[in-house]
Amino acid sequence: MSVTTTRRAIVRLPAGGEASTGPDDLAVESPLVLGMDGDAIATLMRTPGHDLELAAGWLVVESGVRAPADIVTLRACREDDTDRVHITLRAGVRPPRPRAFVTSAACGVCSADVLDLSLVRTSDPHRAGWTVGRDVLAALPDAMRTRQRAFDRTGAVHAAALATPAGAVDVVREDVGRHNAVDKVVGRALLDGALPGTDRLLVVSGRVSFEIVQKAVAAGVAGIVAVSAPSSLAVDLAREHGLLLAGLVRGGRMNVYAGEDCVS
Amino acid sequence: MSVTTTRRAIVRLPAGGEASTGPDDLAVESPLVLGMDGDAIATLMRTPGHDLELAAGWLVVESGVRAPADIVTLRACREDDTDRVHITLRAGVRPPRPRAFVTSAACGVCSADVLDLSLVRTSDPHRAGWTVGRDVLAALPDAMRTRQRAFDRTGAVHAAALATPAGAVDVVREDVGRHNAVDKVVGRALLDGALPGTDRLLVVSGRVSFEIVQKAVAAGVAGIVAVSAPSSLAVDLAREHGLLLAGLVRGGRMNVYAGEDCVS
Repeated sequence: MSVTTTRRAIVRLPAGGEASTGPDDLAVESPLVLGMDGDAIATLMRTPGHDLELAAGWLVVESGVRAPADIVTLRACREDDTDRVHITLRAGVRPPRPRAFVTSAACGVCSADVLDLSLVRTSDPHRAGWTVGRDVLAALPDAMRTRQRAFDRTGAVHAAALATPAGAVDVVREDVGRHNAVDKVVGRALLDGALPGTDRLLVVSGRVSFEIVQKAVAAGVAGIVAVSAPSSLAVDLAREHGLLLAGLVRGGRMNVYAGEDCVS
Repeated sequence: MSVTTTRRAIVRLPAGGEASTGPDDLAVESPLVLGMDGDAIATLMRTPGHDLELAAGWLVVESGVRAPADIVTLRACREDDTDRVHITLRAGVRPPRPRAFVTSAACGVCSADVLDLSLVRTSDPHRAGWTVGRDVLAALPDAMRTRQRAFDRTGAVHAAALATPAGAVDVVREDVGRHNAVDKVVGRALLDGALPGTDRLLVVSGRVSFEIVQKAVAAGVAGIVAVSAPSSLAVDLAREHGLLLAGLVRGGRMNVYAGEDCVS
């Protein structure tokens, strides 16, 4: 069982009241090193738990992996006091390619990827005539919220989920990194043989950046439902790929930034 | 003048009401390529504006740059429809080192950096006996908030600021990426010759991950004041480096996760 939250003694200063010292639950953040052919190819700062799913989902976005058989082995271990996942891909599957630099949190796209934007491989996100009810969209963040256990304890963990157009939430994953949470649900779907996620919706607890839409496109889902707002580039990419993009889905209202024809 | 917000026609679905179509302001997200010696060394997905500050702040964290004279030139241009900043460092200054992969948003730390954690170079974050008033800390997020102009329009942009222990907010920067916002204020301070930021506070609008504390340590600030909560590793790193770390600073209350002796 992975430790997703941990306690530290902290000082609480209420508005106008006396200071008190006591334990506080914090979201765990620790490195996971991904290795391939004996090399460390990436380090993800993540909340422990579902590490194999995280690695699998990361591969869907970063490499040619599209089906469970594309991965020969995913082996988790702990070496030198660090969690690791060793990856072996099937021969012929495009490996993840090194990027120049790890940049920072709300970014992480190398110039080649930006320029290759239109080349992102994707299936059709949904069948012709596919729709999802406005009431279903409005209810999805709350449906996911009831399963955000680490958020209940810490108030500081992002979540992602996959849901059906009938409003059923298949799988919920949490992480200090909102991109990791998405990778975990995409990885679970990959390992279940459920990619491309045609006609499924990706639900996210935070904002929608370019990179989140990239992940949705790579996973082949029909759309994204987000508690917060998208960036300009996220909207443009969703429109280019025919995805539904609903944001600021709160209290029964929402904005539909792309794919409004899919909302019934 | 850089364009930080842009408009798209969207569909609004109010709770129980009729759909309406109209313009919506979105935070701009677009790539900025950093180049050195003719090579693209990083691409940051950022909100345009203060690009030279962003590049300078990024260098403080990623390279040996610690003073304005460490940078010979920062030249902004637009080539191939892409914004770029060309960097020339003073001979002898440690250049940014390539990392294996750009990972994802709330991560971005290579294994070497994680292992070298204790080796992060830093000045003393504050003078002996330095303190900051609890009321000052409580007021800083609101003081920054009054200057978050892109947030006013979009509701979807992070902010960072540098503040004095008397509660004066020096500089506020906004970005779709919370790490970029920090890099922009750190870069401004570098270019002003104001690093290390001893006795200054870094104010951030979001959560505090390991990487945000890394940036604070590299900038030499005395502490971090955050609207949201920190991760476990962020708290541990702040304690290790003697930083004040106040989080969930809202409505007059707060939690002090590290450096409580600095709060008067």
